[in-house]
Amino acid sequence: MKDVYEIAVVHGDGIGPEVCGAAVEVVRAALGSDGPLRFTEYPAGAEHFMRTGDSFPASTFQACRDADAILHGAGGIPGVVRADGTEAGLDFTLRLRFELDLYANIRPVRLFKGVTSPLRGVGAGDIDYIILRENSEGLYAARGAGALLRGEVAVDTLVQTRKGIERIVRKGFELARQSKGAPEDGVRRVTCCDKANVLRSYAFFRAVFDEVAADYPDVATEHVLVDAMAMHLVLRPAHFNVIVTENMFGDILSDLAAATVGGMGMAPSAEIGEAKGFFQAAHGSAPDIAGKGIANPYGTILSAAAMLEWLGHKHEDERLSRAADHIRSVTEACLADGLLSADLKGTASTHQIRDAVCERVMRDH
Amino acid sequence: MKDVYEIAVVHGDGIGPEVCGAAVEVVRAALGSDGPLRFTEYPAGAEHFMRTGDSFPASTFQACRDADAILHGAGGIPGVVRADGTEAGLDFTLRLRFELDLYANIRPVRLFKGVTSPLRGVGAGDIDYIILRENSEGLYAARGAGALLRGEVAVDTLVQTRKGIERIVRKGFELARQSKGAPEDGVRRVTCCDKANVLRSYAFFRAVFDEVAADYPDVATEHVLVDAMAMHLVLRPAHFNVIVTENMFGDILSDLAAATVGGMGMAPSAEIGEAKGFFQAAHGSAPDIAGKGIANPYGTILSAAAMLEWLGHKHEDERLSRAADHIRSVTEACLADGLLSADLKGTASTHQIRDAVCERVMRDH
Ligand SMILES: CC(C)[C@H](C(=O)O)[C@@H](O)C(=O)O
Ligand SMILES: CC(C)[C@H](C(=O)O)[C@@H](O)C(=O)O
Repeated sequence: MKDVYEIAVVHGDGIGPEVCGAAVEVVRAALGSDGPLRFTEYPAGAEHFMRTGDSFPASTFQACRDADAILHGAGGIPGVVRADGTEAGLDFTLRLRFELDLYANIRPVRLFKGVTSPLRGVGAGDIDYIILRENSEGLYAARGAGALLRGEVAVDTLVQTRKGIERIVRKGFELARQSKGAPEDGVRRVTCCDKANVLRSYAFFRAVFDEVAADYPDVATEHVLVDAMAMHLVLRPAHFNVIVTENMFGDILSDLAAATVGGMGMAPSAEIGEAKGFFQAAHGSAPDIAGKGIANPYGTILSAAAMLEWLGHKHEDERLSRAADHIRSVTEACLADGLLSADLKGTASTHQIRDAVCERVMRDH
Repeated sequence: MKDVYEIAVVHGDGIGPEVCGAAVEVVRAALGSDGPLRFTEYPAGAEHFMRTGDSFPASTFQACRDADAILHGAGGIPGVVRADGTEAGLDFTLRLRFELDLYANIRPVRLFKGVTSPLRGVGAGDIDYIILRENSEGLYAARGAGALLRGEVAVDTLVQTRKGIERIVRKGFELARQSKGAPEDGVRRVTCCDKANVLRSYAFFRAVFDEVAADYPDVATEHVLVDAMAMHLVLRPAHFNVIVTENMFGDILSDLAAATVGGMGMAPSAEIGEAKGFFQAAHGSAPDIAGKGIANPYGTILSAAAMLEWLGHKHEDERLSRAADHIRSVTEACLADGLLSADLKGTASTHQIRDAVCERVMRDH
């Protein structure tokens, strides 16, 4: 337990400031104005890159290293690119992941009451699983390292290490143990998602998964190929509990999963390493709706709740754990009451959602 | 036009013989018993590997090279692996793709009348697009070439070439020109699906796409990141016309797409190069239901129709083109009449579907 927790806040691009601002207000409401979190804003992203030529200032990086946790809105603007053609505004997220070794990207996928799934016959409670995305290697290891030869051949190399696989798989089993199991059968289950049938590095992922699984005989396991997994997330989402997978696969599957529970606006994430935690919704900066006041802030609010949970657990600080639970249950209640943004086919603005959640957070204290 | 077209038939593993046998019968029914196609069976796959230690005999390979087209059931049995841990039974499909340079994997995604989509509010006619999967490079180029170092680090390298990208993108624009456009707005549109924001080789894919697109000003274009695409295929499938993408992404997205139109049983594919065509449903060998007589043969029947269309076009043989159209419209009618297999929540066996389709193909001649 600490007197003060330093939170480095980066608003980023597009809708980033809107959703991040809302989440900070909600946390403040939950902890009281004299609460233990101190939020400090730092610049990074594509807009900063356009102004200064630097997408991720060294001072921002240092602040992130020094902080107890990092909260981010969203980054990147299409077309604002580096020399190799990739987006400049993503450096903040991608370099933090690699340089702070935030190896576990935890993406809970849950269909809330009040939100309509695009899947026929699927209702609240039917979808409740975690996609655990390896966040420090895999195909993303090639970011900035790929080669383009004579304008003719481009290569990017996927790297998977025993250490990297072991630790993410262990995390998967720990998350499963803490969970109440899959919605369908209540079984605690870790699903290894790979492409072991075709590629050696994924066969290695699977082999290491099987080794680690032996230490968790109380948790059920299975292997599902990534292509089949894309199908299953549509046809039998209730089956899953914790899905562990490589970085690129996790990126694709987590957007797909979000689509089944209301879209990217409903997709929180927590990116965790041994020492640090980084929290942002899984969505992009949505420049098309930026500044209109209609962005869905729930994903970032739920990411901020994950931040409080993580800090509370790490520092054995009950105040933070309680605030996390509180924000989650208020969020759940607001959604159930129909407080929905445009992407959820509602009419509430970002500010209306922020204010209603804050009010209820304070009222129900 | 030829007097005889040699078709190399490989039944493969699991349900392969059941669905492939059904498709051959349907083609025979459509062309008459004295028709111009000669089917010859050759062995390959995991079962053959278990018996002989060879998953893809040289004689089968030679027959495929010599044939006018190749028809396949399905290959692979989980657990039947090569020294590197990947599946032996997939050599047939994967080596054919690479060694015959079958660069265009055309996967039509269409919701037929009579089939219920798992997507709420989506009916027949709402989903009708093509996933055009690059089939000769990308991450699959690493098959058999990845390295595992000291049991500690595994690498697989994704390779994308200008030539490879150019030809698949051109194919995409040609397919769009032949199409009637997206269901939603009738616009002929090619969507470039990549991960250009993060990785150089995908930025290269996008850059070459844009170059080629300039030659097709009559076709609309757009860029969609692969993670967003996974979401869009669930939330707005009616928007798409032709989607062109790298090999691994195409693998994942085409299973996802299949899920939205009835599952893997409804997923035909055509794998085409300059000289050769290879036809099989996109599903696996489904060993769990093999031999039970309940496999869905529609995917393979529709793949066989694609074979007839391709042969008919290549050899300017109207008989074959007509037979292709005929099989497709009969298939459509049978589905609309409720002739559904277990995966489509019907009760028809593989044989019942085969026989009913054959009968109607002959009756409506
Ligand atoms: C913004 C982008 C770099 C990021 C990713 O590709 O990982 C995003 O899509 C995500 O899922 O967090
Ligand atoms: C069977 C397997 C090798 C194949 C692939 O991964 O390409 C299949 O999933 C497909 O989509 O054709």
